[in-house]
Amino acid sequence: MWEAFEHAAHFGLDNLTAIIDVNRLGQRGETMVGWDLDTYVARAEAFGWNALEVDGHDVEAIDDVFARAIETTGKPTVIVARTKKGKGVAAVEDANGFHGKPLDDPDGAIAELGGLRDIHVDVARPTVEATARTKPSAVQLPRYEIGEEVATRKAYGDALAALGTARRDVVALDGEVSNSTFAETFAKAHPNRYFEMYIAEQQMVAAAVGLQAVGWTPFASTFAAFLSRAYDFVRMAAVSRATLALCGSHAGVSIGEDGPSQMGLEDIASLRAVHGSTVLHPCDANQAAHLVAAMAETDGISYLRTLRPATPVLYSPDEEFEIGGSRVLRSSDEDEVALIGAGITVHEALKAADALADDGIAARVIDLYSIKPVDVETLAAAAEVTGGRLVTVEDHWAEGGLGDAVLDALADSDEPAHVVKLAVREMPRSGKPEECLAAAGIDAEHIAAAARKLVALPAHRA
Amino acid sequence: MWEAFEHAAHFGLDNLTAIIDVNRLGQRGETMVGWDLDTYVARAEAFGWNALEVDGHDVEAIDDVFARAIETTGKPTVIVARTKKGKGVAAVEDANGFHGKPLDDPDGAIAELGGLRDIHVDVARPTVEATARTKPSAVQLPRYEIGEEVATRKAYGDALAALGTARRDVVALDGEVSNSTFAETFAKAHPNRYFEMYIAEQQMVAAAVGLQAVGWTPFASTFAAFLSRAYDFVRMAAVSRATLALCGSHAGVSIGEDGPSQMGLEDIASLRAVHGSTVLHPCDANQAAHLVAAMAETDGISYLRTLRPATPVLYSPDEEFEIGGSRVLRSSDEDEVALIGAGITVHEALKAADALADDGIAARVIDLYSIKPVDVETLAAAAEVTGGRLVTVEDHWAEGGLGDAVLDALADSDEPAHVVKLAVREMPRSGKPEECLAAAGIDAEHIAAAARKLVALPAHRA
Repeated sequence: MWEAFEHAAHFGLDNLTAIIDVNRLGQRGETMVGWDLDTYVARAEAFGWNALEVDGHDVEAIDDVFARAIETTGKPTVIVARTKKGKGVAAVEDANGFHGKPLDDPDGAIAELGGLRDIHVDVARPTVEATARTKPSAVQLPRYEIGEEVATRKAYGDALAALGTARRDVVALDGEVSNSTFAETFAKAHPNRYFEMYIAEQQMVAAAVGLQAVGWTPFASTFAAFLSRAYDFVRMAAVSRATLALCGSHAGVSIGEDGPSQMGLEDIASLRAVHGSTVLHPCDANQAAHLVAAMAETDGISYLRTLRPATPVLYSPDEEFEIGGSRVLRSSDEDEVALIGAGITVHEALKAADALADDGIAARVIDLYSIKPVDVETLAAAAEVTGGRLVTVEDHWAEGGLGDAVLDALADSDEPAHVVKLAVREMPRSGKPEECLAAAGIDAEHIAAAARKLVALPAHRA
Repeated sequence: MWEAFEHAAHFGLDNLTAIIDVNRLGQRGETMVGWDLDTYVARAEAFGWNALEVDGHDVEAIDDVFARAIETTGKPTVIVARTKKGKGVAAVEDANGFHGKPLDDPDGAIAELGGLRDIHVDVARPTVEATARTKPSAVQLPRYEIGEEVATRKAYGDALAALGTARRDVVALDGEVSNSTFAETFAKAHPNRYFEMYIAEQQMVAAAVGLQAVGWTPFASTFAAFLSRAYDFVRMAAVSRATLALCGSHAGVSIGEDGPSQMGLEDIASLRAVHGSTVLHPCDANQAAHLVAAMAETDGISYLRTLRPATPVLYSPDEEFEIGGSRVLRSSDEDEVALIGAGITVHEALKAADALADDGIAARVIDLYSIKPVDVETLAAAAEVTGGRLVTVEDHWAEGGLGDAVLDALADSDEPAHVVKLAVREMPRSGKPEECLAAAGIDAEHIAAAARKLVALPAHRA
């Protein structure tokens, strides 16, 4: 909560009035500070707020305190209201042990409170900002040449800035790492639509939920690892049916030297398990740029996972990438095995396919950039051609990521596949990206070895 | 961070000295308050701390302020130190844009700082509390009669209290819902080893990490849904190689009326994707009690998912339940399909098996209480007998839960199965537990229907 207090004061939100209903009781017993209103006031003031105490059962005093709150300039105001839980019903008033429990005598309680009443209060609905309703122009996405080395995180920033030029409803937020996520590219192009959220990922997601409620299209970014701090907020955004785009950069062991605390190896699992979410993981800059544009058109929580290192551009800037799609980068009717990756592992899979070709083994390579929703048809076709021999490879823990998405896609099919899942299974150490990929067993060499072993087994399909 | 400040003051930790190194700069630019030390002091004082300012580059002043910190009684102390980032190296001192970047001239910088030096400072290691080293006695777990209706969350509390009696190293923490999680049973039995963490799940996990570092065996509980608030802390506990037990209660749509924000439908996915974790989901009270005891012997992060509603006791109190195991509740050599659940869905699967038996379909029922690690052998045997026909059913989102654990277990086997995954796929509403289970398509009727459909298909295995 204090992240929110700090941000509201920092941004001088003097049109904001918060109310703390201090009824002294939690679910289980008294709160830390009970009815000590002065403590709430001191904390709010230390965080830059105007704070006003009130008897929360005195209607005239409440009316008066709201009037004073409106007059405040330069600061948000918090009204600290002393109340009694269950006020007016003797059986439960200010009593512990009744949280979330039905009353023994509900009719008696209603009578005690003065009988049935029917009071309607009209409150103003938030209005959608006029700027956010401006008609969009065509997006001029950045263009990268095939073979160029560009980090997908850089493409995120370039594409988001371009999107912001075409669409005045697009806003960006970042958690004090905009020079790493490349949200700063947007910030420089559209400074009045960029919100620096400092190191406060929970408040970043909360602010994005608020922005989308009044018609903006928010993109919020930080390191993939640090998004875990906001997991509860993302979960609740989904329950609230919010539409917002998240970007987690520096995902996977491919970040190298910074070590496991910064690697975000649980992001795909945790974001897939958010209701109605979309999870995307591009391997090249043009693909990343197109997916950023697609996210702005996507309902619900969409998540883009970007890479720290520069990767070779594989796709033409004119190629379109739809959500739910994939790309088959190598294929033939003689494919004996399919290698399925996303992000950094696509490049490793391509190298593995080269090595396998040298051995006379034809390997299909699939770029599964859309992990949720996933391209079931392309995966089923690969299983069909290869006799069910699939190798999945992901720079992520073995649980809940790309491999599990592939298994899920084929689970309820006529004849499922034999899937070897390569993923990070031991706690990584600090090292060069290629050392980390090798140590985790997800580099080209490990992929080729897994494929060779699988090809030597009998096919699952005729 | 303010959760930690609040708790330290609340518990009167006057042996704690914290240091805020105020160098004014973040990674990207200046922090919200820059060098405004007074703001940090005011906030710390409002949170009940003693706060002392110091020039962080003046060694004598630092020595003096530490002496004053030690003298403080009744309150923790924070030293707010004004520093310059990169102090003493002209090229970077107090300059933005150098965060996490190698210096252009490292040798010059070392020379500027006075040349190579070799200073060793011995600091005291935390000592393991004597109480925590007391020799354990045999655990007298609670015993429930077969057929009795007992909630697994109640068994958690009973078992934890029993464990606390046998083992003086066991401590419990809860996030202001101990009357729901039943941590209160432990709190009543062992009040001096119970820590009320109020509504501060992040700090609850942080405190558990600290407790285990000095030899205690912590169990931390809250609603499964609210553990998502602490996901970053759980992730970092794993990176720190901490050993602690978590319990998430009120998991799944079976909680009924409280609605989706309270349901914790992502807990298995997010906890499976924590390195080295153990994920357990008992369906009956005796099983829950034995698993609580097993968790106290388990390295790493272990997680127990408990249910709100009372469920029939299926197992004898004398039955042992190992981590990594499962139970086959119905089986024959003629099984045509296997129904695999955990928690509430075990009971639904048993009812479905009865309905299928009435149709002349023999269904194996597996209680997969250990979701990570998972019992691969029992699953493979079920696939073998049933011609690969498996129905998984879970009160959890379709991503990353029990179904995916089953798919993963069988992915790299000689002849994988045809798996129909029943899980929660639409945002649930409020309702009676049985209505919620039916609406989510995970009750006995839906399980039986899925099994009938699967049995009508050709077998995957000969």
